[in-house]
Amino acid sequence: MKILRTIYAEDLEDIAIGGAILGTGGGGDPYVGKLMAQEAIRKHGPVKLVDVEDLPDDALVVPVCMMGAPTVMTEKLPQGDELVTAFRKLEQLLGRKIDAVLCGEAGGVNSTTPFVVAAATGLPLVDGDGMGRAYPELQMVTFTMHGVSATPMVLCDDKGNSLVLETVSNGWTERLARAATVEMGGSALLAFYPMSGDIAKKAVVRGTLSLCANLGRTLRETRAAHADPVTAITKLLGASIIFNGRVRDIDRRTVGGFARGSARFDGLETWKGHTFKLDFQNEFLMAERDGEMICSTPDLITLLEAESGNPVTADSLRYGLRLVALAFPCNPQWLTPAGIALVGPRYFGYNADYTPYPFS
Amino acid sequence: MKILRTIYAEDLEDIAIGGAILGTGGGGDPYVGKLMAQEAIRKHGPVKLVDVEDLPDDALVVPVCMMGAPTVMTEKLPQGDELVTAFRKLEQLLGRKIDAVLCGEAGGVNSTTPFVVAAATGLPLVDGDGMGRAYPELQMVTFTMHGVSATPMVLCDDKGNSLVLETVSNGWTERLARAATVEMGGSALLAFYPMSGDIAKKAVVRGTLSLCANLGRTLRETRAAHADPVTAITKLLGASIIFNGRVRDIDRRTVGGFARGSARFDGLETWKGHTFKLDFQNEFLMAERDGEMICSTPDLITLLEAESGNPVTADSLRYGLRLVALAFPCNPQWLTPAGIALVGPRYFGYNADYTPYPFS
Repeated sequence: MKILRTIYAEDLEDIAIGGAILGTGGGGDPYVGKLMAQEAIRKHGPVKLVDVEDLPDDALVVPVCMMGAPTVMTEKLPQGDELVTAFRKLEQLLGRKIDAVLCGEAGGVNSTTPFVVAAATGLPLVDGDGMGRAYPELQMVTFTMHGVSATPMVLCDDKGNSLVLETVSNGWTERLARAATVEMGGSALLAFYPMSGDIAKKAVVRGTLSLCANLGRTLRETRAAHADPVTAITKLLGASIIFNGRVRDIDRRTVGGFARGSARFDGLETWKGHTFKLDFQNEFLMAERDGEMICSTPDLITLLEAESGNPVTADSLRYGLRLVALAFPCNPQWLTPAGIALVGPRYFGYNADYTPYPFS
Repeated sequence: MKILRTIYAEDLEDIAIGGAILGTGGGGDPYVGKLMAQEAIRKHGPVKLVDVEDLPDDALVVPVCMMGAPTVMTEKLPQGDELVTAFRKLEQLLGRKIDAVLCGEAGGVNSTTPFVVAAATGLPLVDGDGMGRAYPELQMVTFTMHGVSATPMVLCDDKGNSLVLETVSNGWTERLARAATVEMGGSALLAFYPMSGDIAKKAVVRGTLSLCANLGRTLRETRAAHADPVTAITKLLGASIIFNGRVRDIDRRTVGGFARGSARFDGLETWKGHTFKLDFQNEFLMAERDGEMICSTPDLITLLEAESGNPVTADSLRYGLRLVALAFPCNPQWLTPAGIALVGPRYFGYNADYTPYPFS
């Protein structure tokens, strides 16, 4: 298989930071993700990134990820071994060799978890993911829209417990896996959505991991050049700056295995005198400015520290932080009736239709 | 294998009623259990009951049961097919033919669930169980005390979802299976604790199903003869009558997948002027008379309707019912430090040691 690029331990910092930008406030702490993947690469060697188009149609491709509230992920640093265990157990269950590893979601942790498995197994890693961003629930992947079943799925915890799920729908997979994850202490590691190469070519959001690496590198290089990192990231993403302000208050709680809540901001500079509110369920789902909804899922909303340009997760929001909010367009796969039904504002309980943010 | 006795559809009524007596208020509605098993026997033929001592040492024996709050079991009548599915999936997973079916607990439902599988598979059913009674949690079986792992375990629901669990302890099996069961709507069907014949000989509480049949028959025949069924059952069990009274009030709720609560009684006849209280978590766990603890798990506490002698589950308790409370001794396997740790009053949160009821 043609190798796009070889990823070494030192590349992981950029990828994790880029993942946290696409992670839209969720998807876990990039520091945790980086550490896990770097350790695996140092131990087992670098990872070969491949393009989904170069996979044989009959290849067997398996995504891996970490599940749980980001708050818990950070406190319960996973070993990574359980992820390899989940992957190998699924391979055994499927009764054939897996040919490539896939990323489930782009986020601070889950953009890097597949590197752990790719390094440990020596398998190529597909440059792409199932969201082009992060989402809180397991069924919220482009794979679902292409009829791929989340099961058989293997879910492992850090204690040595494991579950194999076979469900009647990806919604049921989410419910049962979430209940198990909560019981396991709030985080678990999984291998799921086994699919063939030809399906992967249709379903995968292409180039996500390269985009993560680009975002991280841009941030790093702009900072080194004493230029403005926020402007550079905004340009790279084709994003709009939708607010600039300070955190006024945060309401955050862990409910049903999710970090849920909202954060309010007071405007600065151009936005002085204006207010801004972000709701999240792990990820930022809805932005309101001066009490009016201006941007929602599936479009991406992310927060960057005004000075450093570093992405800020919903988890690490704290009083007084000065932040810039960006909005940028989602992968077009989400802009279908099925996509909007799966991840649009109504699914999350908002009595509002999705209105694309007017990106120029 | 030597056959103790062949069980036909018409024998199931006695067994389910007897199961409800040993079920100590839990273990489900005997009417539900009877219907499931009778249908399976009518469809597939009668069941061969065997003694555990007649199993080859290297036989593979697998218990099956229904899990969930009895309240839910009654509302969500299981098909029985899911139980056979769970059993067959476990067989496939173990990679060898199962030689005999075993009963997990004696209760209105779970004394009869193994008949569904035995009828459908044509396999012999061991005359015994893992408790000699009913208990609310999965790890509360004599099998645990003999080092048998509850996993690999297969858990199925009525929708077509299934889970395979492999856990580090039977306590973890309980936690994860309970969380899944709650999510599945409150009840699930399972095959677990695979064990060899030689272990079964040490671990199984012998003769439980024959005892259930005896109890049911005694009740039926005594009633037919216009004799006193309560006296007959008391004698057969070597039980003591610890109260006689009317239900004054019931506090019952479904919490964490269990039916929990307590019932209070006002005394009649010998017990006029006295009060009685029974606590339950699915099963009756603790009896207090005039505010003093008089009998607790692992000893068995059961309620019979004063006139008919019919067992009354915690679930079907209602204001004004006139009942007789019996206490009878548990299987001696529970009377070890390990047994008391597993099912004694302290496990259930009581700040009291187990004191055997002074059975004469």
